Amino acid sequence: MAKAKNLSIGVDLGGTKIAVGLCRDGEILKKVIFPTHAAAGFDGVISVILGAIEKVMEGQNHKDILGLGIGSAGQINAATGEVIYSPNLNWRNAPLGNTIAKAIDLKVQVLNDVRAATLAELKFGNGKGLDSFANVFVGTGIGSGFVINGKLINGATNSAGEVGHTCLDPEGPLCGCGNKGCLEAFASGTGMENYVKAELKKGRKSIIKDLVENRIDHVRGPIIAKAAEQGDELALAAIERVGFYLGISLANIHTMLNPEIILLGGGMMALKKYFMPILLSTMQTHILPVARQNRELVGEARFENDAVLLGGSAIFA
Amino acid sequence: MAKAKNLSIGVDLGGTKIAVGLCRDGEILKKVIFPTHAAAGFDGVISVILGAIEKVMEGQNHKDILGLGIGSAGQINAATGEVIYSPNLNWRNAPLGNTIAKAIDLKVQVLNDVRAATLAELKFGNGKGLDSFANVFVGTGIGSGFVINGKLINGATNSAGEVGHTCLDPEGPLCGCGNKGCLEAFASGTGMENYVKAELKKGRKSIIKDLVENRIDHVRGPIIAKAAEQGDELALAAIERVGFYLGISLANIHTMLNPEIILLGGGMMALKKYFMPILLSTMQTHILPVARQNRELVGEARFENDAVLLGGSAIFA
Repeated sequence: MAKAKNLSIGVDLGGTKIAVGLCRDGEILKKVIFPTHAAAGFDGVISVILGAIEKVMEGQNHKDILGLGIGSAGQINAATGEVIYSPNLNWRNAPLGNTIAKAIDLKVQVLNDVRAATLAELKFGNGKGLDSFANVFVGTGIGSGFVINGKLINGATNSAGEVGHTCLDPEGPLCGCGNKGCLEAFASGTGMENYVKAELKKGRKSIIKDLVENRIDHVRGPIIAKAAEQGDELALAAIERVGFYLGISLANIHTMLNPEIILLGGGMMALKKYFMPILLSTMQTHILPVARQNRELVGEARFENDAVLLGGSAIFA
Repeated sequence: MAKAKNLSIGVDLGGTKIAVGLCRDGEILKKVIFPTHAAAGFDGVISVILGAIEKVMEGQNHKDILGLGIGSAGQINAATGEVIYSPNLNWRNAPLGNTIAKAIDLKVQVLNDVRAATLAELKFGNGKGLDSFANVFVGTGIGSGFVINGKLINGATNSAGEVGHTCLDPEGPLCGCGNKGCLEAFASGTGMENYVKAELKKGRKSIIKDLVENRIDHVRGPIIAKAAEQGDELALAAIERVGFYLGISLANIHTMLNPEIILLGGGMMALKKYFMPILLSTMQTHILPVARQNRELVGEARFENDAVLLGGSAIFA
């Protein structure tokens, strides 16, 4: 049995999987992962979460556990533990925190998943000891969290940190949110795929077309990565485009908030060798001349797959 | 003689004028204004400031004054009181705070002017009691300040709040900072003038051309305002363009920081009746759907010409 003190439980509630871990000071002592089965609806998902919690608590005394923190996809009311809206889970106004708290004898809090990951970096990761940083997660979408004066910010209506939906060009490509030219429409995995598809449809030459056997709708990130490895011009242009728009956006974050560092994480980091040079040079050009100092502007997040789970545990650490 | 308690001195150090006031709790008890004479260099400007301080302190006991706060144009190191760079004053690494402190027997602190104005709103104005707000000043340039968790943020290298130099279109018009598509290049008074000049040079019809007697380089804000009053299409389009880009940018601030409100101030507010409708509708469209709640997103700053002076005094209030 783990040492009684400083135990907490972290939950990563995603659209496809639920991970629950028993944690102490940023270390995962025990972890279970289940598929989410979002189609089973709120009650079904709650059952999966409760089953997973039971598993990691086996042999533990409730009173040794400081609390349970959930990092959930979607817009979260951190004060009430409600999931206001989560497209991945297809939930609206779902009383997640209260429902879990009623079923188990523990304090429960809920945060947006990327905000939770940011808290993990602040308490245990590459943001530890910093007064201010931004944590930008670039995957199929783009999310972020900000720490200012040593504290994670949630915003007046719980939507602080959505840098993915800041506009970088009012005439830019359509975003999933309905607006044009959001960072996410340019620089997420989905944005990169859409760009490649559009270029292929315009007739641009690329080995990607062979790799998907002419089925343009089958273009995915890993295929673009494979083509880039082979020096394919379109693949490299698509990835560099990600770097350019991330560079503009990170410069905007820097110009507005001037944090000590901006941490990057997420699945797109697998392509960093292709996009980081243009990201950094674009960012250097677009930050204020007075801010172009001899210091690191960008770093990497420490935690990868476990970031949200650890962030949940960090609420009570 | 004013009541001894809670007195402080505020200084507004601008490129054209220096205003110094004796203040108590957001009220100016006595104020003097002198031209800056920036051409006289650092020592010359210091003399003007010290002369003005002497005037407002006549009959006051030093020990009744809590301190002196300066709001200065340019990038300021708030920790050392140094003006790192101010194009308006043509200063680099100027030891403003220390020089003033040595000459008078008072505690002295220096802040960037728009950050000082933001502090005035926080302590005495329309940001009083708020946990978070942004204060955006739209004049010949665009500056801003952010309050988060009840505190003004300065940033890691004293450049937080420069929303005027966030990029809204990498292919947009050239900004004074050397980059393309900054908010300031679109939506400041200068940006508006440049747009009108460019359109006139392209041959667009407008009564503005008559108002400046064909001397396109003489186009200024008040002339555009006059033409707008007469229903001139170009003048109205130029002002609405300001509203559109401010709307995009305020939406970006909202999406990133989700403050309780965004306060607007500055000389361009004289045109608000023309640009506010499009600003608000653009902002509503561009914030996240989940953030489109039935609440005021934008308000007006309380203080106009005295904002920076009061902000200086607020450091010690």
